[in-house]
Amino acid sequence: MPMLIEIHDPDDRRIERYRDIRERDLVGRAGLFVAEGKVVVEKLVGSSLHRPLSMLVAAKRLDGLRSLLAQLPEDAPVFVAAQQVLDAIAGFAMHRGILAIGRRSDMPDADALLTRLRGDCDVLVLSGIANHDNMGGIFRNAAAFGAAAVLLDADCCDPLYRKAIRVSVGASLLVPTARLDRGEDVLALLKHHSFEPFSLSPAGTTLLANWRPTRSNAMLLGAEGPGLSPDVLRRTPSLRIAMAAGFDSLNVATTSGIVLHHLTAARE
Amino acid sequence: MPMLIEIHDPDDRRIERYRDIRERDLVGRAGLFVAEGKVVVEKLVGSSLHRPLSMLVAAKRLDGLRSLLAQLPEDAPVFVAAQQVLDAIAGFAMHRGILAIGRRSDMPDADALLTRLRGDCDVLVLSGIANHDNMGGIFRNAAAFGAAAVLLDADCCDPLYRKAIRVSVGASLLVPTARLDRGEDVLALLKHHSFEPFSLSPAGTTLLANWRPTRSNAMLLGAEGPGLSPDVLRRTPSLRIAMAAGFDSLNVATTSGIVLHHLTAARE
Repeated sequence: MPMLIEIHDPDDRRIERYRDIRERDLVGRAGLFVAEGKVVVEKLVGSSLHRPLSMLVAAKRLDGLRSLLAQLPEDAPVFVAAQQVLDAIAGFAMHRGILAIGRRSDMPDADALLTRLRGDCDVLVLSGIANHDNMGGIFRNAAAFGAAAVLLDADCCDPLYRKAIRVSVGASLLVPTARLDRGEDVLALLKHHSFEPFSLSPAGTTLLANWRPTRSNAMLLGAEGPGLSPDVLRRTPSLRIAMAAGFDSLNVATTSGIVLHHLTAARE
Repeated sequence: MPMLIEIHDPDDRRIERYRDIRERDLVGRAGLFVAEGKVVVEKLVGSSLHRPLSMLVAAKRLDGLRSLLAQLPEDAPVFVAAQQVLDAIAGFAMHRGILAIGRRSDMPDADALLTRLRGDCDVLVLSGIANHDNMGGIFRNAAAFGAAAVLLDADCCDPLYRKAIRVSVGASLLVPTARLDRGEDVLALLKHHSFEPFSLSPAGTTLLANWRPTRSNAMLLGAEGPGLSPDVLRRTPSLRIAMAAGFDSLNVATTSGIVLHHLTAARE
């Protein structure tokens, strides 16, 4: 059982990292991140990629969290506060009653990450996904359908931003992730690692439903609106999702779910 | 061309309905709703279900909106304001620069709506979807994949709430919708109208990917967590989406996209 430390004063220096959560989200956290809610904190505690540094819980929630707390590293303190102190610390009503600060591990580069993957598997390659809801939704689907990794281009937002973690239900703490360098030739890299790249595009030449996946597929997704670059579209086979006339618009996270489901079903 | 009315004072009584948008969302709008952004307002103007009453636009956006404004009813005024006046009216920075107030048509009852549907088609039946993001996402998918209608149980939130409309990209203004009475036997109603009901559930007996749709399918979706009622699950064939071990959790809007894509692909 880790040490429990009671906090009565929102200005207590020991819970400095939990202060004014929303404002800090905006300035960045230098290697740290915030996990909110029991289910997400469970993912953090079970993550082989990232490490919990401390936890802050509402006193009334303590009993229901014993088994989770028991899995914390010995040196990770658990701060306990009354709900109103917790709210004052966070800067908003923290209904979930449990927060954790985690330390992110260094992201591997894409080459190292792909080298590590073994056997037939699928990866997602994201381009320009700047919305944290979409990023979280994509990671949730990646975990749900067992994608082996997610590669992010230089224009993607941070999947460990607080809201992205929350929307992902903690999946962004679990799915191996690498960031591509700006201008890095991801298609050459994928080929080098025996992944076949496929672009998703409303103008794709093959219907997703008619497409048979290969052994190791890299599925390329761009942001709604701009989509993938003309260069990528020219150099890859492209897939489209059949839609109704007059409203051919899908959310990119939903698209990732449809694509990953198709891959999963094809592997059955 | 409708009449243009310049607004210089945020307190002008003529734009009363646009004041303090977020606060009014909370108290309800008595038959009216708010559409935001050009794409969504286009859907409202083109909707056969609902009617635009007026529009409020940033002066600098006026030129780019001429063709949209030309499609407004003659008696619908267009209020034009400087960006800072617009922001003061709305109560937040209205980057989209265009708002419309619409009047909702009376929702048909479910029996009347199903009576109107002709030929083979699919409908969604939603139970307890209380989150506006999810509601909007489901409607977006319903429109993208051509679902004929969406039925809502008494515990579902309002698809014409401002955020639900925005997330749906206007789809909730286009897809025919009915609200079930509390306790109404939707399964009997569906059978009466020759729809076969199918439940989506993580504990479903048939894999969605292996399931062949019938001619007219009613796909039942419950909220994440509680899911569908035991009564509904007992009385319907149930489908599940294959997922990875250890993270069997999908967002309900993503689920609707996967299900509707499967139906669309099967009809090809």
